[in-house]
Amino acid sequence: MIKESVDSYLSAAASRSPAPGGGSVSALGGALGAAMSSMVANFTVGKKKYEDVQEEVKKILSESEECRLKLEELVEGDIEAYTRVSSAYSLPKETDEEKENRREEIARATKEAIAVPLEIASCCFRVLELCRRLVDIGNKRLISDVGVSVLLAWAALQGANLNVEINLSSLEDKSFVEEKRSVIRPLLAEGRMILDEVAGKVKKEIVK
Amino acid sequence: MIKESVDSYLSAAASRSPAPGGGSVSALGGALGAAMSSMVANFTVGKKKYEDVQEEVKKILSESEECRLKLEELVEGDIEAYTRVSSAYSLPKETDEEKENRREEIARATKEAIAVPLEIASCCFRVLELCRRLVDIGNKRLISDVGVSVLLAWAALQGANLNVEINLSSLEDKSFVEEKRSVIRPLLAEGRMILDEVAGKVKKEIVK
Repeated sequence: MIKESVDSYLSAAASRSPAPGGGSVSALGGALGAAMSSMVANFTVGKKKYEDVQEEVKKILSESEECRLKLEELVEGDIEAYTRVSSAYSLPKETDEEKENRREEIARATKEAIAVPLEIASCCFRVLELCRRLVDIGNKRLISDVGVSVLLAWAALQGANLNVEINLSSLEDKSFVEEKRSVIRPLLAEGRMILDEVAGKVKKEIVK
Repeated sequence: MIKESVDSYLSAAASRSPAPGGGSVSALGGALGAAMSSMVANFTVGKKKYEDVQEEVKKILSESEECRLKLEELVEGDIEAYTRVSSAYSLPKETDEEKENRREEIARATKEAIAVPLEIASCCFRVLELCRRLVDIGNKRLISDVGVSVLLAWAALQGANLNVEINLSSLEDKSFVEEKRSVIRPLLAEGRMILDEVAGKVKKEIVK
């Protein structure tokens, strides 16, 4: 999908086909957010005005690019994981043995599939952390792009969370459910604080 | 850009090149949100369980697709508008006459450029309104996708606003500034209410 054109991807997402769905689209939203952090860092690297922060900004750039590429992988990763869950639902369910096997396979594929939105959430959270520094040390001419970065990364983090939760809701393994929630919930809580902080600074800089 | 691959677009956005920047990326984020509304509507059309709302959902689908295609155009439209502003900044500024001409051209191109994020904001707001109905009448199996739709449309609306504001900040024509603000500010205020309402309903449905 990532090698297809932007308008093909959008048409496929809009169509009556389950994939790409909300998980993949969240990964792409996060990748757009990461790309904006990279752009801001790219316009800060090598600028005399920002010479004191060159080393840190280079590190931010390398991390935002890592997040962007990971999120691009997850655009496809979510489609693959979804396909495996769908296949499990298509298993035969005539005999008791078949039913039991199908139930186990669905649970197994669903647990595996949850790894994808969890990873999307983790990458988006990292982008939020990078924005928290970029808003202070990045090229001030691109302050609105830091804003777009933080807004999209936050939307994508929450979108990933919805995909984690909807998958968890079909599972009976309560300890698995609690374990995964304990991973993503702190990211949401801390993420909202970073969003408010960064968005506040961006607005203060722009609307004078 | 829209005919290029997803990964080429993302690389270009991340690169040390001003376009695509935050305006174009916001338009694409909004298009992703609109695509999710279309998908939910597509999976509601023709379903017996939702026969009472068929006419309304078909209308929603047609509107979400209209928003998506308009936002796709604006992904490119923002790049073109930005290029015209940049060209104005490159005009000669040796003589007083040249300086005056350059100043006027920059203001003219900037005023024109603001039309793009204003239109992005208006399309994203429309997507939010569609989500407000879809969360109640759309296929419940895709409830998390309604959530992703509303989250991305809201992020994109705010991203568009940052691009409106940063362009307004360079203008001296105060009545123009106030006029444009009076267009976008109600969309933000009402948009936040819709976001809270829809996101609340989505969570209630998913996390039980």
